[in-house]
Amino acid sequence: MTQIFPRKDFFNLPSGMIYLDGNSLGAAPAGMDKAVAQTINDEWSAQLIQAWNKAGWMDMPRQVGDLIAPIVGAPAGSIAMGDTLSIKVYQAVAAALARVPDRKIILSDTGNFPSDLYMAQGLVNLLERGYELKTVAPETVTESINDEVAAVLLTQVDYRTGRMHDMQNMTTAAHNAGAVMIWDLAHSAGAVPIDLTASNAEFAVGCTYKYLNGGPGAPAFIYVRPDIVDRIQPVLAGWLGHESPFAMEPEYRPAMTTERMRVGTPSIIQFSMLKHALSIWEDIDMQELRRASVDLCELFITEVEARCPALTLASPRNHQERGSQVSFSFSEGYAAMQALIEHGVIGDFRAPDIMRFGFTPLYIDADDVVAAATTLEQIMTDELWRDPKYHVMSRVT
Amino acid sequence: MTQIFPRKDFFNLPSGMIYLDGNSLGAAPAGMDKAVAQTINDEWSAQLIQAWNKAGWMDMPRQVGDLIAPIVGAPAGSIAMGDTLSIKVYQAVAAALARVPDRKIILSDTGNFPSDLYMAQGLVNLLERGYELKTVAPETVTESINDEVAAVLLTQVDYRTGRMHDMQNMTTAAHNAGAVMIWDLAHSAGAVPIDLTASNAEFAVGCTYKYLNGGPGAPAFIYVRPDIVDRIQPVLAGWLGHESPFAMEPEYRPAMTTERMRVGTPSIIQFSMLKHALSIWEDIDMQELRRASVDLCELFITEVEARCPALTLASPRNHQERGSQVSFSFSEGYAAMQALIEHGVIGDFRAPDIMRFGFTPLYIDADDVVAAATTLEQIMTDELWRDPKYHVMSRVT
Repeated sequence: MTQIFPRKDFFNLPSGMIYLDGNSLGAAPAGMDKAVAQTINDEWSAQLIQAWNKAGWMDMPRQVGDLIAPIVGAPAGSIAMGDTLSIKVYQAVAAALARVPDRKIILSDTGNFPSDLYMAQGLVNLLERGYELKTVAPETVTESINDEVAAVLLTQVDYRTGRMHDMQNMTTAAHNAGAVMIWDLAHSAGAVPIDLTASNAEFAVGCTYKYLNGGPGAPAFIYVRPDIVDRIQPVLAGWLGHESPFAMEPEYRPAMTTERMRVGTPSIIQFSMLKHALSIWEDIDMQELRRASVDLCELFITEVEARCPALTLASPRNHQERGSQVSFSFSEGYAAMQALIEHGVIGDFRAPDIMRFGFTPLYIDADDVVAAATTLEQIMTDELWRDPKYHVMSRVT
Repeated sequence: MTQIFPRKDFFNLPSGMIYLDGNSLGAAPAGMDKAVAQTINDEWSAQLIQAWNKAGWMDMPRQVGDLIAPIVGAPAGSIAMGDTLSIKVYQAVAAALARVPDRKIILSDTGNFPSDLYMAQGLVNLLERGYELKTVAPETVTESINDEVAAVLLTQVDYRTGRMHDMQNMTTAAHNAGAVMIWDLAHSAGAVPIDLTASNAEFAVGCTYKYLNGGPGAPAFIYVRPDIVDRIQPVLAGWLGHESPFAMEPEYRPAMTTERMRVGTPSIIQFSMLKHALSIWEDIDMQELRRASVDLCELFITEVEARCPALTLASPRNHQERGSQVSFSFSEGYAAMQALIEHGVIGDFRAPDIMRFGFTPLYIDADDVVAAATTLEQIMTDELWRDPKYHVMSRVT
């Protein structure tokens, strides 16, 4: 299979913009409007309620899960789709705790995305049974896993710095201590090669609106290791995780498959979008995509370090410890990023001083990287970030 | 304000079909494909990550909540949007139990939608603190509310029979016994006049893909009585319910408004669809819509009872005790409904013997009702339901 990157033809990219924020919201695949119009007009409008059967809506979450499975090294049928990543974190943590009822610590790190920590803490507060969410520095997670730890909850790639945990070794460390492993793949699914089966992790969760390009609010996913699915008692026991939803039984009976992690009615329109977005992946070799990603990141580091001495690399220099993003720290990073955005290069800012750039080889190439570095050099050399207009805070960057 | 029903021009309705299942999935508003294409092309594709600010995505859930508020008699700012109805039930039940920690019973009725019961039971199982989900017959709920009941969880309009609880009296009964009231408005929002403020209920939840026509998988809503919002500790503590989501603080601090009931990233495309679907409501007087609904339901009952003696009315005959649907029981109801559907009249079937017909005055008129009854008469008189092809079970009807 010959890989040619990038595949800009698959995407609708605004002209005059270099988009280095696909790690936050992926670009729109071309033809998305038509794909959605078909679902709306040919299915919803024309078939109405019958579309749940005739148009295959009821099975769509399972089908889409099976499209994601090979991207994260999981077997068909092992991924349930729906809701948001925060909800899937909640399901995974609750299920993990139930596997080791005598242990009370959920171990995470300070590089985890806040919502993961919030959801875990919310569960801890609800349970009132002596559970504790403990966060340590990313570098000290391995040594902190002991026989009091019930579950290790980590985001593989740090949303700020791009620092990447070694999934295989970390999972082994958790298992050696008798703990359950939960991976959040928000910043790695579609960005780096993942082999969930080989990792032997019990749970993984992720979102699909970043590197998988499903669009804003695209459904989330949860992976459950196939050998443990039938022992999980879902805490969010919604009807679409029932073995027979339309029997309308008074008692909950979970489906015998990963589908038991489904909760309520799926967001069909977002699913039809995600399905369209995933169509590109059947031709993608993740190892080749990773090579392209590493090349782009290395090029960006080289260019920026040569051009912008005021910026300090905040990501690991070793590409094996880094996801598909590069971050630089700069005390006036917020203003500098606003200036950069106004000059057509879209990255984002994360407090307190991180300028963050995501590299998505499907639609970013080496010319884009050099052009972005050149623009950044101009911002820095001319100190354009001093302009007061770049210091106005917006809610999202 | 002059009301003229129906408003078929606002909807894309398939020709040759009489759609009496808007209580399950509402019809598609006209122009929905264009509304979505605009969000995809002018916002996502063109603005990418910046659309969260520039296109107002971040505030969209609050805006859409404010469009729903008047439909259910709630003040602006009292409704949070997102997720699915099952998730919103979970949030409401957990919040209700926390208000009366010394009480252990969640009281519901056998007419409640199974997913509500499943979610409540899942929470009960998780808590392991002696909680109990108790379900009684709908007629005996009032007398079953005692000083052991923490929360009364009811769906106002029964999904099978259309039987409607008296919201005002039931809420008063709950409060007189010191219990918290939770209403599920799945089959009443957009179908019957609701005055949440007057009811004084603490919580209400609902979906938007039935009478509100938001499309398959449209986001759900939760109402919290404004005076108690700031004392609720959300159990699903997602980052978008945080007071300052983008501060990325390590600790969860709930927003000071109903927005604390938000969880994860909103399904923006479904929100843009719902917003379009709700645009019709600004001209709708719910009292007039209710009159039209009652007229249609009464006409259908009269016509069917005159034409189809084998069918027995399964809905309350008194319109004050009935929502916007009419159900008939018939031992061969499944097959009869399949035959009816093949003849262009779309209702649905609910086990064991309920033929269910929803009446949505926005796009159904008296001619439709008479035509539907005429077709049903033909099915029954000619016993077309005996054809074996109508006895094949499908997953959704």
